[in-house]
Amino acid sequence: MTVDSLATPLVLALDAMGGDDAPGIVIDGAAIARERYPDLRFIFFGDELKIAALLAERSELKDCSELRHTADVVTADMKPSHALRQGRDSSMRLAINAVKTGEACCVVSAGNTGALMAMAKFVLKTLPGIDRPAIATLIPSQKGETVMLDLGANIECDAENLVQFALMGAIFCRTVLGRKDPSIGLLNIGTEELKGHDEVRIAASILRDRPIPGHLFGFVEGNDITAGTTDVVVTDGFSGNIALKSIEGTAKLISHFLRETIASSLLAKLGYLLALGAFKKLKKRVDPRRYNGAMFLGLQGVCVKSHGGTDAEGFANAIGVARDLVAHGFNKRIAEELAAQYGLDGSGHAAQPQHSEDE
Amino acid sequence: MTVDSLATPLVLALDAMGGDDAPGIVIDGAAIARERYPDLRFIFFGDELKIAALLAERSELKDCSELRHTADVVTADMKPSHALRQGRDSSMRLAINAVKTGEACCVVSAGNTGALMAMAKFVLKTLPGIDRPAIATLIPSQKGETVMLDLGANIECDAENLVQFALMGAIFCRTVLGRKDPSIGLLNIGTEELKGHDEVRIAASILRDRPIPGHLFGFVEGNDITAGTTDVVVTDGFSGNIALKSIEGTAKLISHFLRETIASSLLAKLGYLLALGAFKKLKKRVDPRRYNGAMFLGLQGVCVKSHGGTDAEGFANAIGVARDLVAHGFNKRIAEELAAQYGLDGSGHAAQPQHSEDE
Repeated sequence: MTVDSLATPLVLALDAMGGDDAPGIVIDGAAIARERYPDLRFIFFGDELKIAALLAERSELKDCSELRHTADVVTADMKPSHALRQGRDSSMRLAINAVKTGEACCVVSAGNTGALMAMAKFVLKTLPGIDRPAIATLIPSQKGETVMLDLGANIECDAENLVQFALMGAIFCRTVLGRKDPSIGLLNIGTEELKGHDEVRIAASILRDRPIPGHLFGFVEGNDITAGTTDVVVTDGFSGNIALKSIEGTAKLISHFLRETIASSLLAKLGYLLALGAFKKLKKRVDPRRYNGAMFLGLQGVCVKSHGGTDAEGFANAIGVARDLVAHGFNKRIAEELAAQYGLDGSGHAAQPQHSEDE
Repeated sequence: MTVDSLATPLVLALDAMGGDDAPGIVIDGAAIARERYPDLRFIFFGDELKIAALLAERSELKDCSELRHTADVVTADMKPSHALRQGRDSSMRLAINAVKTGEACCVVSAGNTGALMAMAKFVLKTLPGIDRPAIATLIPSQKGETVMLDLGANIECDAENLVQFALMGAIFCRTVLGRKDPSIGLLNIGTEELKGHDEVRIAASILRDRPIPGHLFGFVEGNDITAGTTDVVVTDGFSGNIALKSIEGTAKLISHFLRETIASSLLAKLGYLLALGAFKKLKKRVDPRRYNGAMFLGLQGVCVKSHGGTDAEGFANAIGVARDLVAHGFNKRIAEELAAQYGLDGSGHAAQPQHSEDE
């Protein structure tokens, strides 16, 4: 059963208790998302009293929502293994379960990332042919947007993991972003063939040989992510997480410098006021809420993680990301691609005779 | 023999043939540096005819310089192993040799990074107690500047390598930047004790136990580099290189966005003109030339790598970085620190009985 085959309306399972300002941002975010996509319906998992009070003020949202009371919550500092064992009745777990049972087409949570990944993997399982799920997101670039994965689900990856990430990234570009021949870059510390560790070099050689839904550009470096050199940037979760947070940190640093620059003189302040309209557009363009919604790719079900510190607008964007994955039949396309291009053996794993000795 | 003990004037060996616009930027950069630091003298290694022609126009620089003709050049695309074998008479190699013989107190090159590191390691050797040299640089932060290392010399590092990088970073902060109790952050993908791969967690546990010239802050994430959370950020060369280039790429992206914002309307252009003075200051503040000059730390001699694409101003800054390391006796301080805090065994390696089994 694939959740992608569900007819509209799309029912989303929302973990109402995850995130710094939950459940407020979840309810308000759902209301914003519902205005954007009238085909959405919601099941809220969490504290009945709190959610009911918030829904009472929003009759339109209430009419397209269902409420499931859960007493347990996965906290932000809970270890994934602990959450997996002890959080069976948590809002997060029950929201994921709703995807498994087919009640919902996807789950969105702003809670503990590690716990969400552990639970989603345990409950939903990986797609046939995918060994490990990866976390992916869109990053603004000089050419539009770059898809980067993995962002932290897998600290260490072998070459085959990286190849599967490349495949998922390329399929995402084709199905969700509509890019016909996505280019794939493997993140490295130089573009020459001999650079980098074994895994990234073996992954490159596999991707050169295998048919993929797109094409291998080659190695890319950290600056290529925001330059938009390739449509997809593939890396292990350690490097990917560090790259993503370095990018976020630099954006913060420069906006800090900009504020200081504007405040530094009366002329600068006047100039800023004149240019206010343009600066507001810039602010909107680099608004981190716009890029909120990290996708857990490679699972038998759609799961999106919202930033824990986001607001209703950001949470609504994360809902939009989940909706896009479902509406474009992303998971179905992965299954089709794996079946068509590589064939699947009895175990549900893609057959890779030519490189199986490398791992 | 330590080069740090040389009396003024300071003699610098400059690889005049390294970099996209060599030897022009090297000669012009030396002239700028000489104005800043009248105690500098230079030995230029490279094409005699070209350098002599450039020096002919600069009598002041000529008077404090010496010229050594070299016919060979290490090219930008040469493999380090090839450069090491075939480049014995290159400008790069002979400039490094001058540090080894004591003729020069340091070497600066804008040439091939991998070749420079391979040659510098081969000729100068590592400092007693340091197993591997690392590449370090200063990165602008919300609190001033962060020292980060390694930036690409060592793709894979064990815990002891990371500990030695931490030590060198801390000593750099104390001796060159004058920060008395530098804080050290280990780059990771979360701040909790159990996050990350073995090496980074073992490094943390070693640094918690050992006396260090500063203190361990703990794990930091990519955004902490530019936030200035710690004085020093320690990581392996793969992650460090990706973080550095992600930071550079983001700065470029935002300046691209800013230019588009300013060009987007007449009011924005007018506002920009009013604020021009302030924006010029901002531009200067984030000017990559200001941060030019990557330090190769851990060698028995000072070696600084300038960006290959820099101009004379940038090259002058790289010379300034080399001068600072020499003038503050950085290498001598490392040797003293290792001897005082850990003791050195006969092999010249620091004794680390408590953790030697971890590596």
